[in-house]
Amino acid sequence: MSRLPEHYVIGVDLGGTKIHTALAAGDGHILAETRVPTETKNGPSHVIGRIIATVEQVRAQAGVSSDFIDAVAVGSPGPLDIASGVIHFAPNLGWRGIPLKKLLRERLRAKVMIDNDANLAALGEHVYGAGRGMDNMVYITVSTGIGGGLILNGRLYHGATDGAGEIGHITVLPDGPLCGCGGRGCLESVSSGTAIAREARRLVERGKGLNILARAGNEPDGISAVTVAEAAAGGDPEAVSIISHAARFLGVGVANLINLLNPDMIVLGGGVMEIGEPIWQGVRTEVEARALGAACAHVQVVPAGLGRRSGVLGAVALALQLD
Amino acid sequence: MSRLPEHYVIGVDLGGTKIHTALAAGDGHILAETRVPTETKNGPSHVIGRIIATVEQVRAQAGVSSDFIDAVAVGSPGPLDIASGVIHFAPNLGWRGIPLKKLLRERLRAKVMIDNDANLAALGEHVYGAGRGMDNMVYITVSTGIGGGLILNGRLYHGATDGAGEIGHITVLPDGPLCGCGGRGCLESVSSGTAIAREARRLVERGKGLNILARAGNEPDGISAVTVAEAAAGGDPEAVSIISHAARFLGVGVANLINLLNPDMIVLGGGVMEIGEPIWQGVRTEVEARALGAACAHVQVVPAGLGRRSGVLGAVALALQLD
Repeated sequence: MSRLPEHYVIGVDLGGTKIHTALAAGDGHILAETRVPTETKNGPSHVIGRIIATVEQVRAQAGVSSDFIDAVAVGSPGPLDIASGVIHFAPNLGWRGIPLKKLLRERLRAKVMIDNDANLAALGEHVYGAGRGMDNMVYITVSTGIGGGLILNGRLYHGATDGAGEIGHITVLPDGPLCGCGGRGCLESVSSGTAIAREARRLVERGKGLNILARAGNEPDGISAVTVAEAAAGGDPEAVSIISHAARFLGVGVANLINLLNPDMIVLGGGVMEIGEPIWQGVRTEVEARALGAACAHVQVVPAGLGRRSGVLGAVALALQLD
Repeated sequence: MSRLPEHYVIGVDLGGTKIHTALAAGDGHILAETRVPTETKNGPSHVIGRIIATVEQVRAQAGVSSDFIDAVAVGSPGPLDIASGVIHFAPNLGWRGIPLKKLLRERLRAKVMIDNDANLAALGEHVYGAGRGMDNMVYITVSTGIGGGLILNGRLYHGATDGAGEIGHITVLPDGPLCGCGGRGCLESVSSGTAIAREARRLVERGKGLNILARAGNEPDGISAVTVAEAAAGGDPEAVSIISHAARFLGVGVANLINLLNPDMIVLGGGVMEIGEPIWQGVRTEVEARALGAACAHVQVVPAGLGRRSGVLGAVALALQLD
């Protein structure tokens, strides 16, 4: 953070529903921030135009000329290639083989950097959030899907082909539900918000889960992880059982990460973690049962500190070359 | 490897049954090597005396004066602390809280370095074996237990408290057999040589597995992973089923490592891998079913290249500061 004050960077978190953009001074202070709908249905060119518009917007907000923007870093769904900045495949954007870095560079004077959205959320928590000062940190986001990022020896770990950190696709239940990736019993297929809602819908299909159904206005399609969490909070045993099951296997995944990576900290974020104690209790129980002595005693398992801002702040950190 | 020719190092692989010691020139060439029984039952002082004796022996063999030995590196069972060189706990040595580095330094003029035995086997394969040139490599030894080591970004990854790489204690079967660590369904409790033998003995206790029992001289206590492997090779369906089960979950563990770490290579060593095709086939099947596209297409899953020498050559590599 030794830049002169007239140097600025911009971070962008490109999501399936929102584009979240922030401008920071060279010392890391955030000076302006905006969130707009992604409007993916209008195609990649439209989305790229919207990214550019948010960049202009935060510049205007902060009163910084484009001459002083050193770098724009974008966190995108992947898989993607960091060096070329090509997004190989992003189902929730409807993108395949989009050269995002090249397309942005044509429209921005600054250096453009691309990384995986979950990696940048990990970096955000490492630089600005719960994981500050932690050399070895795993970030897991438990939302409609499950993703993650690894900070190892103080730096983002990308793996051989920029594909590391696919925590959602660790098998936790070998003969479990079919996952979108083609595997079975991946963490995402058991413990994500989508998995929680699916289990509740299956219950309803069998004529059970009436309490959950009632909370969804008696519409099976209206059942979400939130509906189930609300029913569980109200003491409904069927909902409690669904949440406990998801929590238990999230705990198995967390224990695996502790035994394999011996991290200082595991940071858990995403909407499912907001269910609160029923999820955290399940995680703690499995970690205590499965994580090895010294590694278990050392690690802190904590909630994310930045909420929905971890991605955009991670993009800022990347632009500041703090990865 | 830019040392002058009069500089030498010694690597020691300290195991529960054997001490394996090698002397190398500064350019990495191995000049002398010896293996002696550990004789753990005589206690730590005796074992340390035997380590010193092997050091003297390889020096004499190579005709190198102790003045020219820069470093002696020892791979020890753990958990241990690398900086202090204290072995916290090593059940197969019967050691608890042994300050190995200090005890060796009192008797050697050279610099003494200590690391986990499985980490050094990983380093050995990385520097001298199957994983040469691979920046991101996972080594797994499947033997009576299951251990491993991680080479990430070209270097040994130790984790926060030198406990990383406990691949044997990844959960692959959440409600599976109780593991020595207190967990359930750890990879080691399902796919190790000990687990294979245990499953065969359970079969025999139920009056089945007669083919396996015959190969153990009709002595249930004589049943080992080798007995089961021989019966499987002879076409015995019960033995084939036991081997397939172990192989399948080893494959689940390997797929988890691919999805989490996106390595260039996974190196599989240890006696159980010598069972050959029935184990490798199970691993391949699960990897293909569970590992994500790009990471799966990139990774090579290969047998270890150094056999029983991976540990001692890794210790040499550590002494040469190639970690």
